[in-house]
Amino acid sequence: MDFSIRAANLDDCKDIARMIMELAEYEKVSDHVKVTQKDLEQDGFSNNPLFHGIIAEVPEQHKTKEGHTKIGYALYFHAYSSWSGRAIYMEDLYVMPEFRGKGVGKALISKVAQLGLAAGSHQLNFTVLDWNKPSVDFYLSQGCFDITTTMGYHCMRCEGEALKHLAQL
Amino acid sequence: MDFSIRAANLDDCKDIARMIMELAEYEKVSDHVKVTQKDLEQDGFSNNPLFHGIIAEVPEQHKTKEGHTKIGYALYFHAYSSWSGRAIYMEDLYVMPEFRGKGVGKALISKVAQLGLAAGSHQLNFTVLDWNKPSVDFYLSQGCFDITTTMGYHCMRCEGEALKHLAQL
Repeated sequence: MDFSIRAANLDDCKDIARMIMELAEYEKVSDHVKVTQKDLEQDGFSNNPLFHGIIAEVPEQHKTKEGHTKIGYALYFHAYSSWSGRAIYMEDLYVMPEFRGKGVGKALISKVAQLGLAAGSHQLNFTVLDWNKPSVDFYLSQGCFDITTTMGYHCMRCEGEALKHLAQL
Repeated sequence: MDFSIRAANLDDCKDIARMIMELAEYEKVSDHVKVTQKDLEQDGFSNNPLFHGIIAEVPEQHKTKEGHTKIGYALYFHAYSSWSGRAIYMEDLYVMPEFRGKGVGKALISKVAQLGLAAGSHQLNFTVLDWNKPSVDFYLSQGCFDITTTMGYHCMRCEGEALKHLAQL
């Protein structure tokens, strides 16, 4: 299948916001999404972007029945490991269901890896939901490893009122 | 116990490097540490710092038998959630063994939470090793939750030759 992979720009934020919602629906947590198209425009495409995006696009003749040609995306930001230094954190990787199994996801993560290495990173980190077996299998097949299973790392989070409380020592 | 919490500066990198190694030894992975004092100086205290640090310090009269007054640290960097926007990722939180149980860890994470909120973040993320029961219990007692256990998030990683291979689509 013909598709292209390129850096996201301001004009992609509408489609990124749409696909963030599609991914959250797939993960059964769409009520958790507070980020809007406008947030993405401000946060990702200002002078000091908080994240970077990659877009997968198909030619007009392959557009979806809703008219979409932007059919996948990855979001990442620069991170830091106190063991190995510069790192990349991939926040999201998503391909619309009808375009899966055609190498789009692999092309997106490969681009993130390329950009990470070019920026001096030695490590790519991300999370996956353990019940999302197709994604887990895909990542393992690409040479990624599950450091929760192999080393015991658990993801922890504090937010909302708990975070405000934590800040008030 | 008397101690102070403050932002780290260039002069703290020697002690941060020492404590990164102590933490890695505690986590039984000291051979994984490639980051040096010089790396920390360059990566954390240049014009575009890749991370920020917080230092816990005790007065001279409480120094360790080796002469250390810098007895704990936290490292964090700005992250981004595609659901909730600006976030903070806390890479490390460490207190030297003889100073634990005195509120130093709580003061460090509280400072990270304060700085995160001040920067517009709504979420604090980090990882913990599941066998490190005292740390897991501490974080849970502070209102953090384990999204690996509750939601199924697993930490994934790609590095070294596998990352180079992934980049060569």
